[in-house]
Amino acid sequence: MDLSIIVPISGLIALVFAVYLVYKIRRQSSGNEKMQEISNAIREGAMAFLKSENKILVVFVICVSALLYAASFISGSNMHWGTAVSFIVGAILSILSGNIGMRIATLANAKTAEGSKESINKGLSVAFSSGAVMGITVVGLGVLGVWGMYTLFTGILACTQADATNILFGFAFGASSVALFARVGGGIYTKSADVGADLVGKVEENIPEDDPRNPAVIADLVGDNVGDVAGMGADLYESYVEAIIAPMALAAMAGGVALATATNYGPNAIALPLVISALGIFASIIGMFFVRTGKKSNVYSAMRNGLFSSTIIVAVLGGVATWYLLKDNPSGANPLEPYYAMLAGLIAGIVIGLNTEYFASEKQKPVRQIAEASKTGPATVIIQGLVTGMMSTIVPVISVVTAMIIAYHFAGFYGVAISAVGMLSILAYSLATDCYGPVADNAAGIAEMSGMGKDVRERAETLDAVGNTTAAMGKGFAIGSAAITALALIATFIVSLNLYYTPEEILDILSIGNPYLVSGIFIGAMLPFVFIALTMGAVGRAAYSMVEEVRYQFKEFKLLTDPKAKPDYKRCVSISTKRALREMIVPGLMAVIAPIVVGILLGPAGLGGLLMGSISSGFLLAIFLANAGGAWDNAKKYIEAGNLGGKGSPAHKATIIGDTVGDPCKDTSGPSLNILIKLMSIVSLVFLPLIIALTA
Amino acid sequence: MDLSIIVPISGLIALVFAVYLVYKIRRQSSGNEKMQEISNAIREGAMAFLKSENKILVVFVICVSALLYAASFISGSNMHWGTAVSFIVGAILSILSGNIGMRIATLANAKTAEGSKESINKGLSVAFSSGAVMGITVVGLGVLGVWGMYTLFTGILACTQADATNILFGFAFGASSVALFARVGGGIYTKSADVGADLVGKVEENIPEDDPRNPAVIADLVGDNVGDVAGMGADLYESYVEAIIAPMALAAMAGGVALATATNYGPNAIALPLVISALGIFASIIGMFFVRTGKKSNVYSAMRNGLFSSTIIVAVLGGVATWYLLKDNPSGANPLEPYYAMLAGLIAGIVIGLNTEYFASEKQKPVRQIAEASKTGPATVIIQGLVTGMMSTIVPVISVVTAMIIAYHFAGFYGVAISAVGMLSILAYSLATDCYGPVADNAAGIAEMSGMGKDVRERAETLDAVGNTTAAMGKGFAIGSAAITALALIATFIVSLNLYYTPEEILDILSIGNPYLVSGIFIGAMLPFVFIALTMGAVGRAAYSMVEEVRYQFKEFKLLTDPKAKPDYKRCVSISTKRALREMIVPGLMAVIAPIVVGILLGPAGLGGLLMGSISSGFLLAIFLANAGGAWDNAKKYIEAGNLGGKGSPAHKATIIGDTVGDPCKDTSGPSLNILIKLMSIVSLVFLPLIIALTA
Repeated sequence: MDLSIIVPISGLIALVFAVYLVYKIRRQSSGNEKMQEISNAIREGAMAFLKSENKILVVFVICVSALLYAASFISGSNMHWGTAVSFIVGAILSILSGNIGMRIATLANAKTAEGSKESINKGLSVAFSSGAVMGITVVGLGVLGVWGMYTLFTGILACTQADATNILFGFAFGASSVALFARVGGGIYTKSADVGADLVGKVEENIPEDDPRNPAVIADLVGDNVGDVAGMGADLYESYVEAIIAPMALAAMAGGVALATATNYGPNAIALPLVISALGIFASIIGMFFVRTGKKSNVYSAMRNGLFSSTIIVAVLGGVATWYLLKDNPSGANPLEPYYAMLAGLIAGIVIGLNTEYFASEKQKPVRQIAEASKTGPATVIIQGLVTGMMSTIVPVISVVTAMIIAYHFAGFYGVAISAVGMLSILAYSLATDCYGPVADNAAGIAEMSGMGKDVRERAETLDAVGNTTAAMGKGFAIGSAAITALALIATFIVSLNLYYTPEEILDILSIGNPYLVSGIFIGAMLPFVFIALTMGAVGRAAYSMVEEVRYQFKEFKLLTDPKAKPDYKRCVSISTKRALREMIVPGLMAVIAPIVVGILLGPAGLGGLLMGSISSGFLLAIFLANAGGAWDNAKKYIEAGNLGGKGSPAHKATIIGDTVGDPCKDTSGPSLNILIKLMSIVSLVFLPLIIALTA
Repeated sequence: MDLSIIVPISGLIALVFAVYLVYKIRRQSSGNEKMQEISNAIREGAMAFLKSENKILVVFVICVSALLYAASFISGSNMHWGTAVSFIVGAILSILSGNIGMRIATLANAKTAEGSKESINKGLSVAFSSGAVMGITVVGLGVLGVWGMYTLFTGILACTQADATNILFGFAFGASSVALFARVGGGIYTKSADVGADLVGKVEENIPEDDPRNPAVIADLVGDNVGDVAGMGADLYESYVEAIIAPMALAAMAGGVALATATNYGPNAIALPLVISALGIFASIIGMFFVRTGKKSNVYSAMRNGLFSSTIIVAVLGGVATWYLLKDNPSGANPLEPYYAMLAGLIAGIVIGLNTEYFASEKQKPVRQIAEASKTGPATVIIQGLVTGMMSTIVPVISVVTAMIIAYHFAGFYGVAISAVGMLSILAYSLATDCYGPVADNAAGIAEMSGMGKDVRERAETLDAVGNTTAAMGKGFAIGSAAITALALIATFIVSLNLYYTPEEILDILSIGNPYLVSGIFIGAMLPFVFIALTMGAVGRAAYSMVEEVRYQFKEFKLLTDPKAKPDYKRCVSISTKRALREMIVPGLMAVIAPIVVGILLGPAGLGGLLMGSISSGFLLAIFLANAGGAWDNAKKYIEAGNLGGKGSPAHKATIIGDTVGDPCKDTSGPSLNILIKLMSIVSLVFLPLIIALTA
């Protein structure tokens, strides 16, 4: 039996299941007119942003695909014209998955608030279902896209396997570049709106969070969706397809190119990553049922149970499938070798997630220490947060390194790439718990704005608090998977050099004794710093425009004194949209152009160094920013819960400053780094033939 | 004529010139009794700290030299027992140079204040002379130490040249480990005292800086000396000797081991780094005369003229000497090849210094932007500072990379090492302008405490302000030289592998396709983050003890209400001393132990990766921390000068918070990273034979 038939089946089941969930969500009440009005405003804002963003993306996609098509002539046989086609398909599917996620999230927010009126479990059910739609759509479009393109080019267009996987790099590049713009643009949007709303509303005018009189409140709620839903979805869609494509390419090359170090697991090794991902989809759907049928109000442990169930299921099924597919491999190697690699990746992903949770949890020492530091003012809060973020890098680094060494030990570069597939196999589940957060956050906002009363608001806030914890885990997971995916891509890059150079030449190119490689490492390590500076600076500038607008409206429209006055939400939404789109262009283009320029100036050695430098520094900075930001946020929440003086105390004010610093760290710059390191790797892979043609 | 005779001559001239300067400084008046009393208290505190620190260092030196002696038996012929001896000598000379610098700085502070009574130029003359003593002593002891050990082992003990340079690694290791403890201990000391004094004095009790009623004021002034004078001196002493030793070792190995890539410039290539350093001493002394005879009150341009003069002189003399020494080299290569490498390093050092100055200058955009951000509060000040620090990494990275590629292009690894010598050749001068800062700072403190009146205070503050700018340049220079020195050491590490492996094996070990090397890069990139967290956390804890003591004294001794009350300065001094020494041990040992552990676990590949990862991430983080810290500091000063509301305004308070965050960044964690990356490289070089013996 050809096991790979389950790949399209799993993709279709995923999409059918998503449709079923949407149908169920649609049947829920959206509450009263006021709530629907707010929800509509959020949806309109989010969709307007997506629409404007997509206009820019269309231009970008046309230019790059033209460039790819032209490059395929310059580069000769090593770059197929199909790369340009698959680039377009990858970009479209990535745009689509962000779009679907956003539609469902903005549909479910009012329904979650309305559900919370009934019970916390009802609210949870709606919010989690909407997250599940996002998760399941991303993976469904992922496997269908990769499988479809591969089948199209090997089957109908009769390309070789190696050519077809090369063409798939174009697909990944399409997904990757859309992801970068979505993450950066969404990140700038959400934080400029958030900081603008808070600085004027909470700090200057002393009105509560989500107060309807604040003109930036809708922009803030839109931001949760465009940043955390669409950005996160595009980010992980990219990791997912890249993790699948890297081992496919390595397996295809192991069959063609003579590689001393690579075990040839045979043609089924090309199908294995897709099959594992298909099994992961089934495991995730089963895991989701664990959450949805949880009766007790302990939302968080229901989610955790689901996570562990999915993990165990995919671990068991993955072993069986790997054995079945590789049992007759031509090398006669132990067919379970890649399975151990997959397990290493799966476990590393969970450990990294738990580490992030530890550092962001109000119940643990790091957050408590930041809260304690507020006794001596905001400066010590900042310092303690920096310390926490930096310390939090230890476990993720050790996890990734251990997984990599184990994976390599058992199955070489192919193993490293399969470990990324293992880590991302239950992505549908992780993404569901992750995207549930912003929906709950929106629901709490709608409850406040429509005056639904203290009870509902509190229930929605409980959901929101759990959402923050799962979002922190999700962030750690996103970073870890980005690192291991980028490593898989670098492994593929290294193996691809065999098409152009002898093994001796390659060793010379890749040596840290080669000054061009070392230069590449330095420049690569620098780029994440520059990227952070650009994106953080962008948030600052965009927030400043927002602050001015909000101040202006408070004053001119007499929002706080005249009870009949109404703020003009749309102007704030439009400011966020315009600024975010304008500011995303420079860092976005930098990520695409830097590897090409370095490759042309410093050759393949410089390019290899660039990838190594950017992944090591980008990975660490991403963890640092995410965990420092999360810890600052939760230190503030810990004090708001009544500790150390509670709301309004000097300690609270000190932690608000910490949280404001942390916001762009954890929601703009940090997550964008994930994509930066992956994108630069895939750009290097795609343009390697061109660079070699130009420099040789 | 044997040109290398100028090496011991230059060292002796340096020491004689230092004695002459001390004699001149001694003749200046130390002012009235009150001033002498304060100056004595500072000296006592500083010396007490050094004494306690040295006790710990003696234990460390004895343990490590015993370990080295034992290791020389395990490692066979590749590790000489002389390594243990030269380790001890290196450690002693490093302790000595810190000690001398501190003595002269604490001698000159009151005299500078007294001189400022007469004129700003008189004050400058005294302060700069004391900085010059420090600079000239460091380089004098540097060349004499390296030359002496090399002569001892090749001449009297008849070692081969390669063995002798190997033994010199022990010397560098001794200097390096003392430097780390001095930097970390001094850095923790100075910032715990500073933050403690400011948080209670300036912020809580609203008394001015350096107010004699503040019990921590003496500890604060002591801190300037132990951190900025002794720490900086030991840091650059290390860079200096390591930069000299690396090319000596490479030249010695090029004669012995057959290296395909290395040009054999003959035995004179071993002497060249010492000769260039000797010429640099002469050039620096001449440059110092430019400053001391400057008549106009533009202190800063006098210093800059001196810098450019020294640079031009050493650039000319270096060319002549290189040509003379290498004109008959056995390879028949162009004798000026290493000279171009030297020039590349020299210029890169100046560019990096100017970059730091730009980012720390009140007259430039970055600092102004931070100051502007204070309009929207402390959070935006912090964010803008982070942005500034990250952006400031671009020029240093490009400079180092360019210098490295040029140096390698002309003269291979030897060229890279010589470029570090070039950069550090005018160290005596740079250090003079750098150590002048803390003396001026102390003078301003003494002027305030002894009530010398507004005029004197203002003049001392002008000197202090210039000191801050030159100190910023000095910091940039220290970081740049640390990076290029570490690169030279890594080059030496790579070449040393030829003693154990075939060229093919080496390429395999050093490949970024080797997962152990990649693991090493990740771990290496992580260590600076952990190191920052440890040192910054240490400052926080030490500052907290200080805050408690100061609060206690203010309350119990009624310092602000009872005019007869006197604070107990000594208790604060003792707290800083104890905490700094306790907290320096863990990060210090980590730096020594990490390479050995990684080497044993992951082999030479892991070790090579560790060095590459730590240098790339450590270099970038060091620049980031130094420049963010400097910019925050000067944004505060810009507002204190009357801009944006001036002292006491909300904008001022926001920038005080930025400055407090920046303090441990720029004065503790950042500078310590310089030593971390160098120390790990030298530890790897010294223990490579042992690691290979244990893992083979």
